[in-house]
Amino acid sequence: MQHSSLLVQETVNNFTELPGIGPKSALRLVLYLLKSDPEYAKKLGSSIIELRDKIKSCKICHNISDDEVCSICNDSRREEHVLCVVENLRDLMAIEDTRQFRGRYHILGGVISPIEGVGPEELHIDSLLERIERNGVQEIIMAISPTIDGDTTIFYISKLLEGKEITISTIARGVSFGGALEYTDEITLGRSIISRIPYNS
Amino acid sequence: MQHSSLLVQETVNNFTELPGIGPKSALRLVLYLLKSDPEYAKKLGSSIIELRDKIKSCKICHNISDDEVCSICNDSRREEHVLCVVENLRDLMAIEDTRQFRGRYHILGGVISPIEGVGPEELHIDSLLERIERNGVQEIIMAISPTIDGDTTIFYISKLLEGKEITISTIARGVSFGGALEYTDEITLGRSIISRIPYNS
Repeated sequence: MQHSSLLVQETVNNFTELPGIGPKSALRLVLYLLKSDPEYAKKLGSSIIELRDKIKSCKICHNISDDEVCSICNDSRREEHVLCVVENLRDLMAIEDTRQFRGRYHILGGVISPIEGVGPEELHIDSLLERIERNGVQEIIMAISPTIDGDTTIFYISKLLEGKEITISTIARGVSFGGALEYTDEITLGRSIISRIPYNS
Repeated sequence: MQHSSLLVQETVNNFTELPGIGPKSALRLVLYLLKSDPEYAKKLGSSIIELRDKIKSCKICHNISDDEVCSICNDSRREEHVLCVVENLRDLMAIEDTRQFRGRYHILGGVISPIEGVGPEELHIDSLLERIERNGVQEIIMAISPTIDGDTTIFYISKLLEGKEITISTIARGVSFGGALEYTDEITLGRSIISRIPYNS
């Protein structure tokens, strides 16, 4: 699409670099901005610039943070001896949303993947070991995606922790709540039968 | 979703004010920005701020413009005696994309709509008449969406021009009745300009 304004063209181009935004959506956003409150455009623009400038990675758990240490690591009400190990920020956020976990997190930054050339040295495993040592962590919950790479990563970390007095668990794998058995894939259903849970009514 | 960073929360909130962007997409954009080149975030943020500050409305045709007069009105190669009257900027852009029209434009800013309470005085009709008078416009193409309101607007303007030596045409109705111009494909829209039909009220 041709734009008679260079500035519009430039802003449209900038928007289209974002994931999931094509030229038509970008134009729609730009036209919306042109009609919107000038204060809003200023607010949006500044927060984008500031975001990229100021957001830090928490030096303890690698969560995003406004300060050196994130609000979760700084929260003394959260159990320090239980760590939930996750792949990335999105998984951390998803678990936080459940409000079922009151311990702390450790973000690996991915999983070991020979196919994609990701080795253990590219993940935050060293800082995990150091944290376990320093803080006397007693329990680790591996909230890693149930894939071949995820399983490899869990196995690798559990080997490193062998001999230490730490309980390691993975999040329960099975049929999702409200899901229909007939639409569940064979591997999930098979595993959910193998790791069946004693029933207490 | 809970965010451990206030700045992330703020940017997500700002993004969700944009049309078609919900909290999940907004978070996706923010996470993308966090990983992206810092220069890119700066570029995007600045262009949003600058856009809202600097974009003007062309004082001749009401197109968006970097200057007082837009690049189309400033282009001496474009036929001054043929005006294409459109509802809005998106329609102008859609017609420009067909590369079938080499005259100039006039943006009405909408159509007469009794139901939505839009009267002729809210549209840029005065400036259209003035332009026609001043520049000796010989032909007017009504590229208005083929709806009841669109037809009313065409009728209203054609009545105002009665007695003047001006050819009035509408774009050919290759466009289906009730359809919106901006969603019409380029070929249909382009052909509808070439085979425009003399208008008889």
